[in-house]
Amino acid sequence: MRDAYHEELDSIGDGLVEMARLVGSAIGRATTAILDSDLKLAENVIEGDQKVDELHHELEARAIALLARQQPVATDLRIVVTSLRMSADLERSGDLAQHVAKLARLRYPERAVPRDLHATILEMGQLAQRLMAKAAEVIITKDVDLALQLEQDDDAMDLLHRTLFQHLMDDRWKHGIETAVDVTLLGRYYERYADHAVAVAKRVVYLVTGEHADELQAADIPPVTGVETA
Amino acid sequence: MRDAYHEELDSIGDGLVEMARLVGSAIGRATTAILDSDLKLAENVIEGDQKVDELHHELEARAIALLARQQPVATDLRIVVTSLRMSADLERSGDLAQHVAKLARLRYPERAVPRDLHATILEMGQLAQRLMAKAAEVIITKDVDLALQLEQDDDAMDLLHRTLFQHLMDDRWKHGIETAVDVTLLGRYYERYADHAVAVAKRVVYLVTGEHADELQAADIPPVTGVETA
Repeated sequence: MRDAYHEELDSIGDGLVEMARLVGSAIGRATTAILDSDLKLAENVIEGDQKVDELHHELEARAIALLARQQPVATDLRIVVTSLRMSADLERSGDLAQHVAKLARLRYPERAVPRDLHATILEMGQLAQRLMAKAAEVIITKDVDLALQLEQDDDAMDLLHRTLFQHLMDDRWKHGIETAVDVTLLGRYYERYADHAVAVAKRVVYLVTGEHADELQAADIPPVTGVETA
Repeated sequence: MRDAYHEELDSIGDGLVEMARLVGSAIGRATTAILDSDLKLAENVIEGDQKVDELHHELEARAIALLARQQPVATDLRIVVTSLRMSADLERSGDLAQHVAKLARLRYPERAVPRDLHATILEMGQLAQRLMAKAAEVIITKDVDLALQLEQDDDAMDLLHRTLFQHLMDDRWKHGIETAVDVTLLGRYYERYADHAVAVAKRVVYLVTGEHADELQAADIPPVTGVETA
């Protein structure tokens, strides 16, 4: 009985990795779509999000079924609840990739991003994709050092976001209001996407070390490794 | 034993209502702060979000402790898992109210919102606050009709959001780029806030009717097969 349980738990983990792979690919393609004004690719990303949503609902259903049937406690309970949260983060990341693609579609055949911001948006897109790839790796390896690395990458994202704003606020901005609005929203989408990738990694850290675990400390459940947090 | 359990469940419900009350007040005050450029009120909202975060962590801890100790199944399990999600929605709404207040602080003593957009932003703020008040009422009364009403209110929010964009895209826009960026972000904050209020109400509907319950209906769906991406 417990073996079937842990197999199901592993399989939920596999589903999370698959979601991360899908939304990582989605943000990469959405970025290409918006930089190249590629309508077909944009629509491909928009439609593809349905698969992410389905996976999300399926993982939720399986996690809840697991809670009902196996009634896990301590570490196992923590893993299932954390999986629910990670699935929600990944689903939302997929939405944000879809938002980027929808903006590409809205402006087609025009380009939403002016030439002098291409490099910055490209870098944000690549960084977002890399963050999600690392988040997936963290889910697989449970590598705490790698997870902490994501926070540094997120600082880089904040820096890029600030660069974007400097461009916007520069008196020499000559791309008009519509483009300013588009670029503002794009910056926000990438920033939030990165936040969710970091959140996924942080939740793994919490599972492994018991740190950042305010909720469970209060619940009197000992952390996985027995390590007490300060 | 079951009585203590249901008391704890009620108490978690009370906590959710309290969170909704706090974040409802926060968006109202944040809106006043940004329209009046009231620094003190803005800071008050910014600091106040800590209380919301604390409540969120406390409710999460209690929900998880309840899962561990009481191992609920069926409806009771569904209530606890749904409470976790509602708490996350409310916590995020608090963040968004805080974002509005931070923008007010950033622009102080200037005003972030130009005169001709005051009415629209005021309406968005009021609608957001009303949506959250209704969400709280839905938690208390479990009134499905009221919950469905929130979706109509959300349509009104979308309409206001579109009005905002029409102003921005109007050739006669004369407030410059910085204000366009601010107004774009503000619009996004209110829209997302409303989304979370609606999500809270929808989760109650799901608890009461079992509808929109893909996850539980799908609980017996076999594991994920290969996924194709382009």
